[in-house]
Amino acid sequence: MNIIILAFPQMTALDAIGPYEVLSRLPGATLNFVAKEKGPIQTDTGMLTLFASHSMEDAPNADILLIPGGPGTEALEKCEVTLNWIRTQAQKARWVSSVCTGSLVLGAAGLLKGRDATTHWAMLERLKEFGANPVSQRYEISDNIVTAAGVSAGIDMALGLTEIEFGVELASAIQLGIEYDPKPPIDAGSPGKAGPEIVSMVRGLFGAG
Amino acid sequence: MNIIILAFPQMTALDAIGPYEVLSRLPGATLNFVAKEKGPIQTDTGMLTLFASHSMEDAPNADILLIPGGPGTEALEKCEVTLNWIRTQAQKARWVSSVCTGSLVLGAAGLLKGRDATTHWAMLERLKEFGANPVSQRYEISDNIVTAAGVSAGIDMALGLTEIEFGVELASAIQLGIEYDPKPPIDAGSPGKAGPEIVSMVRGLFGAG
Repeated sequence: MNIIILAFPQMTALDAIGPYEVLSRLPGATLNFVAKEKGPIQTDTGMLTLFASHSMEDAPNADILLIPGGPGTEALEKCEVTLNWIRTQAQKARWVSSVCTGSLVLGAAGLLKGRDATTHWAMLERLKEFGANPVSQRYEISDNIVTAAGVSAGIDMALGLTEIEFGVELASAIQLGIEYDPKPPIDAGSPGKAGPEIVSMVRGLFGAG
Repeated sequence: MNIIILAFPQMTALDAIGPYEVLSRLPGATLNFVAKEKGPIQTDTGMLTLFASHSMEDAPNADILLIPGGPGTEALEKCEVTLNWIRTQAQKARWVSSVCTGSLVLGAAGLLKGRDATTHWAMLERLKEFGANPVSQRYEISDNIVTAAGVSAGIDMALGLTEIEFGVELASAIQLGIEYDPKPPIDAGSPGKAGPEIVSMVRGLFGAG
């Protein structure tokens, strides 16, 4: 099973590394980070560099394609090379998935028309630009297209895909292996829980005002 | 504030990237990945390469030092260069932290004697080798030494440190920013929840039988 995670400048690392940590453990999985050009990719904080092992041109066909999010997706929405590559990959992929604002790139590629889809809570309304129906879910499955909410939601999505493809036993084993028994010290992970003041603080930080 | 995350061959990426995604967003934070030698570091799956921006020799003093885990910690436990570097950094650091089997490296450096500490559930008993008292907690704070449980627990720990250092508002904002409102599709993230069959399956996979 070929899993491809798109890498691009200004991506948010956890969007990619959460699902990577789950999907790389699937039986027989080969997981590759693919970018426009093979080589180093700087993430959105400027403090971490990941390596893309393949260029888009050299990448194998993906069984699972995953588009992470981050500030860099704004450029990808307008990048025809990337959008065409995604469209071509999507024709053969078993699953096409995204985390956070990665879904806006799927939308720009025309893959979300008429579908329920999700993204980072601060960007949810933008899905309408692409003819999608925004839903506030941790992750949303529409046929073979799976979109996850912001950043950390990719871990939940990857476990969900594992359960669907390989069953509850393997999904449980991977969850236990990465000890994913979350106990955040504060309960502020969604706008409703965080309250209006924190929400407007974060909207400011994310430039999503 | 200087944050240093140790990078090493056969590290588990999420151990590092979970806390990175939280701590890199602290006000005024500079976060560096530091390894024995500056340059590319392959993680435990062989499918992801991260870049260390500094060698141990060139690294600044850490305000927060974080040692991730993964199969590669076995070699670090016996690596005097690494252990000495950790001891020296720990003398000046405000916080010394670990995720997963990273705590076994802190133990080997002599930093956990007489302390409550945690690690990946499958390795918990090993903490006794270093004179620590193993506790089954998501993360455990003992003075300025904070150890987290397996892989994904580093996210919770980093939010906990953020709350202590910068208050509940900023910790809430970062949690909301990374939309950390976990909803795993299955509830199998700890040995008690997963049950004995899954536990022995995972012990086999992790070679921790």
